Amino acid sequence: MEILLSEIAEIVGGEVKGDVHQRIRDVAPFDVAHSDAITLAANPKFLKRIDTTDAGAVIVPPDFQASVQNLVLVENPQVAFAKIIKIFHPPLKPQPGISSKAHIGEEFTCGQDVSVAPFAAIGNNVTLGQRVTISSNVFIGDHVAIGDDVKIHPNVAILERCIVGNRVIIHAGTVVGSDGFGFAPDGETYYKIPHIGHVQIDDDVEIGALNAIDRGTFGKTWIQKGVKTDNLVHVAHNVTVGENSILIAQVGISGSVTIGKHAVLAGQAGVAGHLNIGDNAIIGPQAGVAKSVLSGEIVSGSAAMPHRIWLKLQRILPTLPELKKRLAEVEKKLRKYEDNL
Amino acid sequence: MEILLSEIAEIVGGEVKGDVHQRIRDVAPFDVAHSDAITLAANPKFLKRIDTTDAGAVIVPPDFQASVQNLVLVENPQVAFAKIIKIFHPPLKPQPGISSKAHIGEEFTCGQDVSVAPFAAIGNNVTLGQRVTISSNVFIGDHVAIGDDVKIHPNVAILERCIVGNRVIIHAGTVVGSDGFGFAPDGETYYKIPHIGHVQIDDDVEIGALNAIDRGTFGKTWIQKGVKTDNLVHVAHNVTVGENSILIAQVGISGSVTIGKHAVLAGQAGVAGHLNIGDNAIIGPQAGVAKSVLSGEIVSGSAAMPHRIWLKLQRILPTLPELKKRLAEVEKKLRKYEDNL
Amino acid sequence: MEILLSEIAEIVGGEVKGDVHQRIRDVAPFDVAHSDAITLAANPKFLKRIDTTDAGAVIVPPDFQASVQNLVLVENPQVAFAKIIKIFHPPLKPQPGISSKAHIGEEFTCGQDVSVAPFAAIGNNVTLGQRVTISSNVFIGDHVAIGDDVKIHPNVAILERCIVGNRVIIHAGTVVGSDGFGFAPDGETYYKIPHIGHVQIDDDVEIGALNAIDRGTFGKTWIQKGVKTDNLVHVAHNVTVGENSILIAQVGISGSVTIGKHAVLAGQAGVAGHLNIGDNAIIGPQAGVAKSVLSGEIVSGSAAMPHRIWLKLQRILPTLPELKKRLAEVEKKLRKYEDNL
Repeated sequence: MEILLSEIAEIVGGEVKGDVHQRIRDVAPFDVAHSDAITLAANPKFLKRIDTTDAGAVIVPPDFQASVQNLVLVENPQVAFAKIIKIFHPPLKPQPGISSKAHIGEEFTCGQDVSVAPFAAIGNNVTLGQRVTISSNVFIGDHVAIGDDVKIHPNVAILERCIVGNRVIIHAGTVVGSDGFGFAPDGETYYKIPHIGHVQIDDDVEIGALNAIDRGTFGKTWIQKGVKTDNLVHVAHNVTVGENSILIAQVGISGSVTIGKHAVLAGQAGVAGHLNIGDNAIIGPQAGVAKSVLSGEIVSGSAAMPHRIWLKLQRILPTLPELKKRLAEVEKKLRKYEDNL
Repeated sequence: MEILLSEIAEIVGGEVKGDVHQRIRDVAPFDVAHSDAITLAANPKFLKRIDTTDAGAVIVPPDFQASVQNLVLVENPQVAFAKIIKIFHPPLKPQPGISSKAHIGEEFTCGQDVSVAPFAAIGNNVTLGQRVTISSNVFIGDHVAIGDDVKIHPNVAILERCIVGNRVIIHAGTVVGSDGFGFAPDGETYYKIPHIGHVQIDDDVEIGALNAIDRGTFGKTWIQKGVKTDNLVHVAHNVTVGENSILIAQVGISGSVTIGKHAVLAGQAGVAGHLNIGDNAIIGPQAGVAKSVLSGEIVSGSAAMPHRIWLKLQRILPTLPELKKRLAEVEKKLRKYEDNL
Repeated sequence: MEILLSEIAEIVGGEVKGDVHQRIRDVAPFDVAHSDAITLAANPKFLKRIDTTDAGAVIVPPDFQASVQNLVLVENPQVAFAKIIKIFHPPLKPQPGISSKAHIGEEFTCGQDVSVAPFAAIGNNVTLGQRVTISSNVFIGDHVAIGDDVKIHPNVAILERCIVGNRVIIHAGTVVGSDGFGFAPDGETYYKIPHIGHVQIDDDVEIGALNAIDRGTFGKTWIQKGVKTDNLVHVAHNVTVGENSILIAQVGISGSVTIGKHAVLAGQAGVAGHLNIGDNAIIGPQAGVAKSVLSGEIVSGSAAMPHRIWLKLQRILPTLPELKKRLAEVEKKLRKYEDNL
């Protein structure tokens, strides 16, 4: 495949500085790109040493000045680069049609250009939109509804009555709609609370591999538009994750937590039950959130505290043995004075 | 469906105060219940504002006094509520029988009313009890024995020689019987220690989604009667989890740990190898347990310490920067006095 | 099965002290071994009380002195014991051949003695080496290449273009080759960065159950020779895990981290993006690694610090409430002096 630099610029809505006729045959990272590839320099770290790449062209921010290289100036270089990756490496087209080796339940409805792979097991009363891909060994429970342009990777289970929006991606091994962890103490034993709710996943959500997303006890667990989750994330019953929020790998969210819009929960963080995490809040890695977090707040640590206090604490903690000695020294001196008085 | 309040009271062993002829058509949470639904007020939080629900009847503790509402007084309102949910929302009956699209190995034995779904793969010499449900894409290894009234959700793997008791539920994606993580150092490399043990899961256990429960090196990893685990829990080889203990989401238990009865391990807690966790012990969220915990003890923190000390510590930690300043101030004053002496 | 002690010694390259004609019929742990079994005493803990085992023979280090028992003296007793376990409990041979209930794509190549189980789904252009076992409900994507003597347990997904070396074991439920967690901010939303790289798993690697190993954005995520991972481990895009390194259960490695050779990351530890972990480094359990770790360094805590400082800190932390009181006492005394001056 070969595209002129001018064509690439047009596709990403950018402007060429240099040779518009430069032929581009691939896309590659800054340090390994050859002269027929286009690369990315989105931040000062790379822009400072832009002359060190062998790439035939570089995507840069619109305010970037002079370089001997061929440039594509564009408002959002990272997004432009992602679009160019897709041009040279279009996603694999799955086998079209419904495999005769899949199992399809009764009252099945689906749109055009659906792909259902061997050993996908689809229950009764399932609806798929258009251009949906169901990979091998996927289980879709009864009464599940899935929108358009959805990709379900292998070994995913979406259990009964869950709802999946448009342009959703669910990575391999993930479970959507397991029962929440709810038990009523009954003497020494526990009595199971039935979970009659469901999970609703809105448009443009991407769920990582091996996530466990429990259904609501009543009502729904709700993953709102544009949310992205990394691998091995746990979302308990009746949680709401607000639009465009991000859950990094191995995060755990307890039951009935509400997370606002555009929040970020870093890796291995945990949130206790029934709390609110505000819009644009940031939860640090491994943080243990034990009380609600306001919009825009940044917290770290276990138990979590304001991030700026946590930062100070990190500097002091390793010096505690020394502080303890200084305190003992002070006490000793004071005792000496007391003896002298 | 419609049931008289008197009938509901009879089913849950409670007593009606109010209109025994009230017709109940659903069950719902306190704040969303309509006038034809029954709801729950189990604790003071809801009992105080019992008049704010629109529900047609409320399940309350036996000592609850006057209200204008129709009440069902019952010893354990939460358990009663769980039972009523099941009346109005009985669990989906799986397709009866063994699907022709399942794979069944040799020497297969099973009780009555078993359901085996498409693409379930069952090995040789497997025994299933009565009313067992094996969902799609489940793998059951050779010589596995499963009791009565067991439900195995989709994409679960139960590997060879594991034993599962009666009334066990295993949620989607869980692995039972993977090899333990055991390697003998052999110079710079590691030599695999074969794991010839198994996993035994006793009656009334519920295992969450995407758990990994390793088999014993020798002997067994043992999940005793009534244990409940949440999602993404790791249980290593030769662990014993005692009766009615609870492992919340993302807990990790290292090899050869013994957990007593009715213990609670909160989310993301970890326990180091070969330790004992006593009966009724409570391990706080994200705690890192590095030494054994006595019966009834409550520990928190990483490394874990008695919970009451941890609580004090949580109050002091954010003030450490200030304490450091105060110490410096004290030292300064002392230096001044020394200079003056 | 019955083997003479002399034969066992020959197999493991050891030397018998005692009755070379002793007949051995099983292998068992120290405290439960019967008189016809051989057991292990590799360290002082067991060697001190070697006379308390009923075993018919004991494998011991080469320098171990006198005992009335039959001994096998051998350089590496643990490895010898592992080998003897395999003699008495050889791994189950899977059903040979390719099941007619498996799905095999186009352009499939495989070596001799391959086993492919029912409901394994193999894509196009897949290559398997000799003696490869693909269990039920495994998904192998297009253009995947797998070496010799590999065992893939049930419900594993190995996605397109990934490469697996020789003698690799992948436990149940693991995902290899999911997309990395990469998104370009685009206003309030996120634009997906395509992941066109792959995962390369080298020879003699063992991957635990329910691991999630993401493919590279470009290039590869690389699990080098001899690496062992425990259950529920997360490895992000473009990570390199060096030869013979160990990732214990629930470890999480962020994108573009490079781990050296023979490092150990203990359970639930996390490593932030783009860091280096040196050869032979040890990362403590639940540690949160926020900056690179030098070769041979040992770190603990969240955020991680040198282990010896962390150890001191652990002793001081529970005494902080008392230290605070002592500081207040000192301040009080000083105020008294000041008043007296």
